[in-house]
Amino acid sequence: MTIGDLAKDTALWLEPELGSAFTKEQKEDITVKAALYSLNAGGKRIRPLMMRLTALMTGCSGSKMADVLYYAATLEMIHTYSLIHDDLPGMDNDDLRRGKPTCHKVYGEGIATLAGDLLLNSACERLFKAALSNPGYLYASYFMCKNAGLEGMVGGQSIDLDSEGKTIDLDLLYELQRKKTGALIESAVVIPYYLIKELNEEQAKEDRTACLLRKLAEHIGLSFQIRDDILDVESDPSVLGKNTGKDQRDAKATFVTLLGEQGAKDRLSQEIVSAKNVLDELSKSGFDTEGYNVLIDYLEKRDS
Amino acid sequence: MTIGDLAKDTALWLEPELGSAFTKEQKEDITVKAALYSLNAGGKRIRPLMMRLTALMTGCSGSKMADVLYYAATLEMIHTYSLIHDDLPGMDNDDLRRGKPTCHKVYGEGIATLAGDLLLNSACERLFKAALSNPGYLYASYFMCKNAGLEGMVGGQSIDLDSEGKTIDLDLLYELQRKKTGALIESAVVIPYYLIKELNEEQAKEDRTACLLRKLAEHIGLSFQIRDDILDVESDPSVLGKNTGKDQRDAKATFVTLLGEQGAKDRLSQEIVSAKNVLDELSKSGFDTEGYNVLIDYLEKRDS
Repeated sequence: MTIGDLAKDTALWLEPELGSAFTKEQKEDITVKAALYSLNAGGKRIRPLMMRLTALMTGCSGSKMADVLYYAATLEMIHTYSLIHDDLPGMDNDDLRRGKPTCHKVYGEGIATLAGDLLLNSACERLFKAALSNPGYLYASYFMCKNAGLEGMVGGQSIDLDSEGKTIDLDLLYELQRKKTGALIESAVVIPYYLIKELNEEQAKEDRTACLLRKLAEHIGLSFQIRDDILDVESDPSVLGKNTGKDQRDAKATFVTLLGEQGAKDRLSQEIVSAKNVLDELSKSGFDTEGYNVLIDYLEKRDS
Repeated sequence: MTIGDLAKDTALWLEPELGSAFTKEQKEDITVKAALYSLNAGGKRIRPLMMRLTALMTGCSGSKMADVLYYAATLEMIHTYSLIHDDLPGMDNDDLRRGKPTCHKVYGEGIATLAGDLLLNSACERLFKAALSNPGYLYASYFMCKNAGLEGMVGGQSIDLDSEGKTIDLDLLYELQRKKTGALIESAVVIPYYLIKELNEEQAKEDRTACLLRKLAEHIGLSFQIRDDILDVESDPSVLGKNTGKDQRDAKATFVTLLGEQGAKDRLSQEIVSAKNVLDELSKSGFDTEGYNVLIDYLEKRDS
């Protein structure tokens, strides 16, 4: 099994679900078009891939797998909304994303802003609908919503915007990362398991596998972000599909600026080892961790 | 009872709930500060006022009233997020709202965009939390979320942006209004009743009082919007607290541009009569409609 296989399987699994997220009539709407433009702009689908891995690892099949897919598309909508808003002139002002013009470059700022709002709102509607169909999913839905908000992605983005041009310490950088990118990755890694077991808040806290998955998510999240920071200084824009050197341009604190390039690489190695240790524990509990092992090897070495 | 009394009672009721929507620690966050700046920028609280009226009219008290209050603050958060994003330079580009500088004028575009995202996300989190506490509220929560989205406010805003500078007909203007301003007003008028009765989707569709409240909301929504369009051409910015003549400047189709000033006034009168007819029916069913009668008289004549 290679990361290419995993990515291909994920794409085949996810794309029809994304395609049916809006009705034919809704797709006539200009803001839906803008949202779909970004949703289909060739993302790596790394979060859906993780959701698929957790689902398969923990023995998911049949209608439960369809539900995981539904949540995977929902999370991808949340992720995409955050990219659209991040790219806006008032935020990161990026004109290139995944090798294509950003949403506001194609549809204008107004529609792009609204397309982000639409994706977040539609994602939350989907989360409610799932809970209406199965009340056992209510906590999982809440969890995905919460991790996108002030205690998660939005909170991390806020620290990020507030830190531009300022000196921040490693502790704040960890908090920033844990919220900004870590929270959605946590959702990806743990929610399929919450769905399968229909866990409520208390059960999710106490369940041993859930605890291991949250630890796994933490190490994956950090590996992902540290590698991202390294790529920003090392990579070729044509490979990465977005502009590089942005962090330096924006005077952003990153793992590279705070730890140095070698320090960041060392830290990445530590996180990879920690992630593999968690996988060993999961493996001892009888879970098939091959897919996650492939993913983690990729996260260590990815060049885009 | 005057509209002033109703507004004062609503403010006294609502403000402590808005004040406790974020913890002391969260209020240190720059994006929370920006969100609270707009949330506390002296809005008329017309949607919370309606929620209070429906709650009192349908015999709500005690802990149910606390729940209605929780949802009223949540709806005001959704309304405020939409204002923050609408005012952005890429959207309506307004620098004045309720007589104060708009959010992005004070906090910058990036933080203002994020403050809008935060308010929408936090609102959805609150809706989930309420449903986790009482599963009987799940449909009401979904309903509020849905009415803020593509089939409601966001969809209306999309039609609005897409129509700028174009000729649109009255049918499309009705759809635009029904979604852009009507949907949140519908949430305000009907959700308290959904909460009190803990209605699910099917029950909400069939319940006679719920049907009457939805009709009332429709007429209130139209009255509100038509009066808004009239104020844009007639009012003094210092009374209105925002710039006037905007619709003309942006070449927007409004009830005034499509029906003429007198035509719009006639249509407003019709809507007021229709709203009062619904109130009569509710009154015959034993509900005390005095508050709503006062509100509707105000909607007909308000100058800000």
